[in-house]
Amino acid sequence: MSTIIDDLKRGDIPDFIEKIAKDEYMDTKTLISSIISGHIVIARNNLHKKLNPIAIGKGARIKVNANIGTSPTLCDFENEIGKVKAAIDSGADAVMDLSIAGDISCFRKRITDEHNITLGTVPIYEAMIGLDNPEQLTIENFLSVIEKQAKENVDFMTIHAGLLKEHISLAEKRVLGVVSRGGSIIVQWMRGHQRENFLYEHFDDILKVMNKYDITMSLGDGLRPGCTADANDEAQFGELETIAKLVRRCKAANVQVMVEGPGHVPLHLIEENIRKQKELCDGAPFYVLGPLTIDYAAGYDHIAGAIGGAMAAFFGADFLCYVTPAEHLRLPSIDDVKEGVIASKIAAVSVDLARQRPDELDRNRKISIARNDFDWDAQQNLSIDPDKFCRYLEKVKTDKADSSEASPCSMCGEWCAIKRIRKT
Amino acid sequence: MSTIIDDLKRGDIPDFIEKIAKDEYMDTKTLISSIISGHIVIARNNLHKKLNPIAIGKGARIKVNANIGTSPTLCDFENEIGKVKAAIDSGADAVMDLSIAGDISCFRKRITDEHNITLGTVPIYEAMIGLDNPEQLTIENFLSVIEKQAKENVDFMTIHAGLLKEHISLAEKRVLGVVSRGGSIIVQWMRGHQRENFLYEHFDDILKVMNKYDITMSLGDGLRPGCTADANDEAQFGELETIAKLVRRCKAANVQVMVEGPGHVPLHLIEENIRKQKELCDGAPFYVLGPLTIDYAAGYDHIAGAIGGAMAAFFGADFLCYVTPAEHLRLPSIDDVKEGVIASKIAAVSVDLARQRPDELDRNRKISIARNDFDWDAQQNLSIDPDKFCRYLEKVKTDKADSSEASPCSMCGEWCAIKRIRKT
Repeated sequence: MSTIIDDLKRGDIPDFIEKIAKDEYMDTKTLISSIISGHIVIARNNLHKKLNPIAIGKGARIKVNANIGTSPTLCDFENEIGKVKAAIDSGADAVMDLSIAGDISCFRKRITDEHNITLGTVPIYEAMIGLDNPEQLTIENFLSVIEKQAKENVDFMTIHAGLLKEHISLAEKRVLGVVSRGGSIIVQWMRGHQRENFLYEHFDDILKVMNKYDITMSLGDGLRPGCTADANDEAQFGELETIAKLVRRCKAANVQVMVEGPGHVPLHLIEENIRKQKELCDGAPFYVLGPLTIDYAAGYDHIAGAIGGAMAAFFGADFLCYVTPAEHLRLPSIDDVKEGVIASKIAAVSVDLARQRPDELDRNRKISIARNDFDWDAQQNLSIDPDKFCRYLEKVKTDKADSSEASPCSMCGEWCAIKRIRKT
Repeated sequence: MSTIIDDLKRGDIPDFIEKIAKDEYMDTKTLISSIISGHIVIARNNLHKKLNPIAIGKGARIKVNANIGTSPTLCDFENEIGKVKAAIDSGADAVMDLSIAGDISCFRKRITDEHNITLGTVPIYEAMIGLDNPEQLTIENFLSVIEKQAKENVDFMTIHAGLLKEHISLAEKRVLGVVSRGGSIIVQWMRGHQRENFLYEHFDDILKVMNKYDITMSLGDGLRPGCTADANDEAQFGELETIAKLVRRCKAANVQVMVEGPGHVPLHLIEENIRKQKELCDGAPFYVLGPLTIDYAAGYDHIAGAIGGAMAAFFGADFLCYVTPAEHLRLPSIDDVKEGVIASKIAAVSVDLARQRPDELDRNRKISIARNDFDWDAQQNLSIDPDKFCRYLEKVKTDKADSSEASPCSMCGEWCAIKRIRKT
């Protein structure tokens, strides 16, 4: 089968391109040239027929990802399916299944059977299952896992191929060395074998599988900073330089590629972080986790992540991985997933509005008009979470004589400014 | 009695100046010259002996205010005192009492007897109590209210003196005309009397009372935008130009002054909004409400407000008025107050960290080291909300053979990157 890039280069325009262009208020030509130049990716496995594909990258709506998946201590697929639903209902554009326990294949089948959302994975997790330690990982085993996951309709995969032996000593200088699970596995492998990262050494073999299924490469940042003190350091930017080279190899192989980023970054370093990625990686889409703007917001990391995510997207990041209130504390619950997605979504749509997207202008204007009209039903329908809106709303009757009178909420009651101005 | 400005100009340095300079990592001379030049205010009523005074403005830590107070439909002072406590415990630097029902004087006495936090009010609310409509407001009545509140130890007062007749037609062009309670009262008064704003006309009389008690003037923005479509419009900037002139009159009268700001502002207009205020108002401290970066986050407006507040403070706003999850929906509960303060606080300290404040660098570094050491007690103590931290934390024993083994949380369990790297 050919890839989207092959098709577009040949002038064969898949049907979904038109639809995406329309959704993104982009003309088809711009969309196509952005995909070919690698400024936009359409993460879509060519076996994933049920997928509703989306564009991630320059000029597209900011997208939001939710991580879900089992852990050895908490392996309940019904609960994880509940998280997928909560994520989708709350506005997620993609989910990454990070499951490391239970019948993962069956679970992925349910996700792609029941939903049409973009699906990502970090294959090294599944490659590790059953091994005693990372040193037992082999490229053969790894390639078989990505081939297996490719057949499970996975649309994009995180590959930590940019983390090299030379970066390890840079990470050792850090306050909080390596916090990426994938990164720590690769470091352990390299230390054990005293050899270069096998994902880097066999990158062309990986690209072959990615190309075969038209899977989008998501170059993982194994050295993402795990605290603000480590942000934008030599370790992070060292790995990024290698990632930039791999971006070019992906493009040469007609494999769509995006780049993963931090993590924990203080506000004043976010712009530099984003600009550097965009510059080094020839404008490849940037997929950031948070970033968290302080280190001590555990319990409220979704808020620190919304601040960092909004700032990152404002400066050019394209895809926000959510952070939930459970970050640093536990595997997220269904409620945590919902709160995390909504927080990231607020960051994302804040940037979409700042870019004057017509749908955002329209939704914001409509709810403001409904507010002026005391049309609570319309406000509820337009709000980001109609259930919570309804649960919180306390209307107040201020004028008993007139039952048709518009009712303000209990924050101001009869002191409502909007009501006062209407009366005057 | 003399004012702080009088004292400083004379070279009499009140004791609290040294303490504030130390708290702010500022040398005393810089602090004093910033207060005299009006770049920093110390909102402190000279009767308010129990107050622990704070600095608001350039170079100082970003401060957070929580609005509390009764409404006619919800008048329970025990509950409001609970909100004050929740606000202080969550890190608020000031509270504004917006009570419009019940025995307000008794309530304010409890606040200032039981706490040493900076207290603000919007005197026009109390001036309205007992009146049938705003047209009955007189300057005599208003002056007696601010004198009464001055004796109740109020440290700063919002005065909507910048909203003039000429601005009304500008606001009429808006999607959501006037959303400030004070602003709507003034508009109704001006419409009814067909006269200029009496607070503007009698501004010198107001300054006399403020000067007498050394109360800080907070120039209210009666035309703050109530939706993103109205942000940075002629109405808002028109009023701001009048406010800028009033800033100079406050300074001429040795009355410390800060300026209030929006409201709802999309991300791309925040920088302009802040720069304009700072430029027009000669660097007077800027006290913003939110700002909210989208209009439809009701139920999660604390998150939209944290995004906007962080961006605003990053570009120079000095004082953040919190927004709670109840905004647009109801009078906030104690829990709403807590959530609102913490969200604003995360925005504030994100900017403090970005400015490399030593205490923030230290706290972030310490929790990161504790994270590396699996020292959960230290992490909990350093976290923004130790109770929630404790409630959420799920530790996992990964190695039963070794009971001394450091325990990761259930997010990754044995897959914890930090643990893996330590083992290698």
